[in-house]
Amino acid sequence: HLFSIIMSDWTECLKFGINLTKQTSEIILNAFKQQKQVHLKSSQADLVTETDLRVETILKSAIRDKYPVHRFIGEESVAAGECVELTDSPTWIIDPIDGTANFVHRFPFVAISIAFTVNKQVKAPMEFGIVYSCVEDKLFYAQKGRGAFLNGEPLNASGQEVDISRCVVVTEIGAERDDLALSTMTSNIFRLLRIPVHGVRALGTAAVDMCQVATGGADAYYHIGMHCWDIAASSIIVQEAGGVVMDTDGSPFDMMSRRVIAASSTAVANRISQVIQAFPCRRDDEDQCRCICGGKGVNSV
Amino acid sequence: HLFSIIMSDWTECLKFGINLTKQTSEIILNAFKQQKQVHLKSSQADLVTETDLRVETILKSAIRDKYPVHRFIGEESVAAGECVELTDSPTWIIDPIDGTANFVHRFPFVAISIAFTVNKQVKAPMEFGIVYSCVEDKLFYAQKGRGAFLNGEPLNASGQEVDISRCVVVTEIGAERDDLALSTMTSNIFRLLRIPVHGVRALGTAAVDMCQVATGGADAYYHIGMHCWDIAASSIIVQEAGGVVMDTDGSPFDMMSRRVIAASSTAVANRISQVIQAFPCRRDDEDQCRCICGGKGVNSV
Repeated sequence: HLFSIIMSDWTECLKFGINLTKQTSEIILNAFKQQKQVHLKSSQADLVTETDLRVETILKSAIRDKYPVHRFIGEESVAAGECVELTDSPTWIIDPIDGTANFVHRFPFVAISIAFTVNKQVKAPMEFGIVYSCVEDKLFYAQKGRGAFLNGEPLNASGQEVDISRCVVVTEIGAERDDLALSTMTSNIFRLLRIPVHGVRALGTAAVDMCQVATGGADAYYHIGMHCWDIAASSIIVQEAGGVVMDTDGSPFDMMSRRVIAASSTAVANRISQVIQAFPCRRDDEDQCRCICGGKGVNSV
Repeated sequence: HLFSIIMSDWTECLKFGINLTKQTSEIILNAFKQQKQVHLKSSQADLVTETDLRVETILKSAIRDKYPVHRFIGEESVAAGECVELTDSPTWIIDPIDGTANFVHRFPFVAISIAFTVNKQVKAPMEFGIVYSCVEDKLFYAQKGRGAFLNGEPLNASGQEVDISRCVVVTEIGAERDDLALSTMTSNIFRLLRIPVHGVRALGTAAVDMCQVATGGADAYYHIGMHCWDIAASSIIVQEAGGVVMDTDGSPFDMMSRRVIAASSTAVANRISQVIQAFPCRRDDEDQCRCICGGKGVNSV
């Protein structure tokens, strides 16, 4: 029993993750000002660099050395053919550089995002989340039941409950470039502005955008088409700051659904879910066939 | 002759402006975390606080004490009824808080923007410009012919000339909330994304957004409906960093036209001007009748 209590307190893993994130961010900061070789993934706007790959490899290797039985879902490993599969094992969900287009352009918002979950918590809060916006030197983190913090200071969502017209809303277009996705996303922005909201913002990184809801600086964030590694860590940070996360259709948050609203309150999240429309996205965990019949990689742990 | 050379080197004014901006930013930073009384101006999204008014008053008062013959165009003075009138006199163009909605919400991008111009330079570069993004502690400034700087480090635009599809573009919706303006602006975003560009960003302050072009972090910024005080200072910062500014219709930059493109190159600016459409805006300097027949204030110098 004592063992299970100790094992269910993941503070040691959180501390290890924070230190590792800070150390590894040096690689990103050193590369930030250099010219980069850029490769494309799913679209002309879906970029990857050697630094994304290198940072993910370093993070996974260090975690595996420390916790050999833990598993991973990593953006670049999935891009290389690994499955997105949550098991009962402790799992680290890693985006080595959230905001790769920003990184390539030196737009100063890029983050390492690391979430940690156990027991297939697709819909439940993560155990902890770390988002380090490294050019800004802003370290956001939260642990389940223990609050959310920015550089050690407690975070609180804005508390906005009633008046959607007084909200600042953050969103991202992301890397989708087909007409249906683009017209749906720009129509969503139009309808939100027409409410009217106070403004729409976009920093170019889902993880850092969503943390703005945790700070109270924004009242809501929504996104359609992102992946679990973009928002898993921020989802617990928002929840521990007193905010809520849900699916854009109003159903409970599902980190694999590729749709998310984070907001200061259920009322604000519901109002946004009434206004915005989604476009079809394949779930992150429905992509099994790539692994069986043609993926470049295998699900290594 | 010597006198005119000395007087046409406005370095002393620039240094005075920088020191004054840094000092006055303390008021903004102190107020940033407090609750604010918010008032509306032209729309439900056009906000003003006591801090906007106070900062503008302090800036104007300090400049007037030092340079009694200089004139002013200030956002809040104009809102109170003053004319926007450029004369041959040295003129300080002041936005006490660019990003007031951010300020109200504590979204961490708010700037003091100060431009300085002489001899009715509506279309010519400013003599100098200062943009202090005070929560970030980023001081951007530029003087005509002497380069642009961020916290003392020289700035260079990205150099992107050829490939609009590899651009990061920044824009703002601003405070316009009528359907024509909103549909035009969201259609512009749709058409840009369809090119496709790498991404669209919005920090919530025109002055700081536009300075991203000067840093090279973004390749272009465009905006329709902003005012001269939002972009006058950034326009010289972009130009001195090697970028260009023009009207959204492709004609030369006109700080009173309420339309601007700032870009890494003429090629990128021209391409954006082909894609985006404007909606009608009354020029900043066509608003004379308010001063004659019903403005709350008079044009005090």
